[in-house]
Amino acid sequence: MASVNRQIALASRPVGFPKLSDFQLSEASMLWPSRGQVLVQTIYLSVDPYMRGRMSEAESYAPPLSIGDIMPGGAVGRVLESADQRFAVGALVQGMLGWQQYAVIDGNDLRLIEAGGAPIETALGVLGMPGLTAYFGLLDICHPKAGQTVVVSGAAGAVGMLAGQIAGIMGCEVIGVAGSEAKVAFLVQELGFDGAFNYKTTTDYTAELRRLCPRGIDVYFDNVGGPISDAVFGLINVNARVSVCGQSSQYNLETPSTGPRWLSQLVVKRARVQGFLVSDYQQRFSEGLQGMGQWLKQGRLKHPEDVAQGLENAPSAFIGMLRGENLGKQLVQVSEWTA
Amino acid sequence: MASVNRQIALASRPVGFPKLSDFQLSEASMLWPSRGQVLVQTIYLSVDPYMRGRMSEAESYAPPLSIGDIMPGGAVGRVLESADQRFAVGALVQGMLGWQQYAVIDGNDLRLIEAGGAPIETALGVLGMPGLTAYFGLLDICHPKAGQTVVVSGAAGAVGMLAGQIAGIMGCEVIGVAGSEAKVAFLVQELGFDGAFNYKTTTDYTAELRRLCPRGIDVYFDNVGGPISDAVFGLINVNARVSVCGQSSQYNLETPSTGPRWLSQLVVKRARVQGFLVSDYQQRFSEGLQGMGQWLKQGRLKHPEDVAQGLENAPSAFIGMLRGENLGKQLVQVSEWTA
Repeated sequence: MASVNRQIALASRPVGFPKLSDFQLSEASMLWPSRGQVLVQTIYLSVDPYMRGRMSEAESYAPPLSIGDIMPGGAVGRVLESADQRFAVGALVQGMLGWQQYAVIDGNDLRLIEAGGAPIETALGVLGMPGLTAYFGLLDICHPKAGQTVVVSGAAGAVGMLAGQIAGIMGCEVIGVAGSEAKVAFLVQELGFDGAFNYKTTTDYTAELRRLCPRGIDVYFDNVGGPISDAVFGLINVNARVSVCGQSSQYNLETPSTGPRWLSQLVVKRARVQGFLVSDYQQRFSEGLQGMGQWLKQGRLKHPEDVAQGLENAPSAFIGMLRGENLGKQLVQVSEWTA
Repeated sequence: MASVNRQIALASRPVGFPKLSDFQLSEASMLWPSRGQVLVQTIYLSVDPYMRGRMSEAESYAPPLSIGDIMPGGAVGRVLESADQRFAVGALVQGMLGWQQYAVIDGNDLRLIEAGGAPIETALGVLGMPGLTAYFGLLDICHPKAGQTVVVSGAAGAVGMLAGQIAGIMGCEVIGVAGSEAKVAFLVQELGFDGAFNYKTTTDYTAELRRLCPRGIDVYFDNVGGPISDAVFGLINVNARVSVCGQSSQYNLETPSTGPRWLSQLVVKRARVQGFLVSDYQQRFSEGLQGMGQWLKQGRLKHPEDVAQGLENAPSAFIGMLRGENLGKQLVQVSEWTA
């Protein structure tokens, strides 16, 4: 076993988009698990938009990181040492291991990954937090019905591409909004979206949405916010449901942005807008995993991944993901793994 | 019986706030009810904010009026002639009689008012559309719980003053936002609100709301929108519920206003915003009337009224109501009545 643990910590609070210098790679001594704890070697690390919020000082649903704190992150790994009898050495586990090669973590905060099931990295995507977010955020909040029109912003992101595919499974007309021609082609040609557009090159979102959604918009799964959402709200149907999963267009702003007020539209359309966190569905995770797992086995859900190599590349992978440079769920492979 | 029917029609579409010249008083011949119809003499006419929307050309939940159309409006009246056996001559009825002294209306669109019950004008307020709006908009959408903090904008309006009182009956801490010192005093001293402030003289809504709502805001019943709502959204608690009943600050704008984007706040707080129309609750009106009627009998609901005299004063009463000059439900008495 290695004698040092490489870690990546928050070096400074980002101003706008994070820079590489906002992160610091350092080495710590290996720790040994105390009673009830487990030593885990990270295999795959997930980088996700929510981490941007934790880097800021502003109050949010989780306390902000302090300077010097290890960056948080879900990961899958293998058990190297265990002082919790539920986790044998060699077992595969998932948990909030953080941006580091090794983590000592309470057994209660780990979940075993079934050997011989889906590829282990799916525990960070389609069968993990992004999958559960898409599942509950779309099905529980929006109740999409066959034949209805569903718009997904951030549609090529880890959550969006799953939300759109679930909507397709439900028999909906699914329109995605994404940030490159490659993503738009991918959504339509690979993931079965009925239509998509590139918000970076489209100038009139309303006209484009009107063209792609001739019967209006019944459901909006929003990962992005800003002018895309402004346009969507103008086109919602009576009894529309909006699930606010994220607002990635707003995360890197130094001053809050403004936009047209649209609450009158909610009255006219008797529409509902609901923000949510997947953690609020913890009691129903097994239901969600069962649903997603079944569709996955049936080959009805694709789950492309974009894998960066090496812990030292986690910051650039994270920044690239915030800039939408990934195609598929962004992961970082921290140590070797063969199934 | 009179041989002419005085009516008030839309003369021109208002630019911004309606002016008296946007209305036209005219005289029409009396009509006689055909089979299934009833001739009703208007006693009390209700003027309500929704009528402003009908005067504009923009699409809304009801088709816009045409120039020359009689202004629509709920009213109570007495039956003068009847070709519908359910309505005897002399009976008291409620319906969308419009801004006129006499209306010939389909019996199916009328509702009998129980003689010897509450004063007949309550059928236009606490036991009518405003009461049902407050009842379902607060209870069905916001589920207020004892001890929670409820903020009501437009709190001295016909709906707001009832929504606030219902929240008080539910055991909530109730804070009102209104447009004059007299209204603020009235809300606190007469209607039992726990606090209120005058948005016309308060400069920092956030600071004032923070002072009045030290435990944050769990429920927001919004009649107004604009900067008041901006401030409220900044102070909502986890799992907050927002009922959007109206957006009176926006009705008379010629260009849509802009404001800070707050959808991120919905995610952080897992909060819900729902627009509604009372007409969507038609199947449950009897439930609402029973609930309101019981509280009324128990003396737990006050229902102040502001009564203008004469049909010719309906336009000024309507404009005054839009400007917030009334204290209590704004009515127009069109013909004499003694209980």
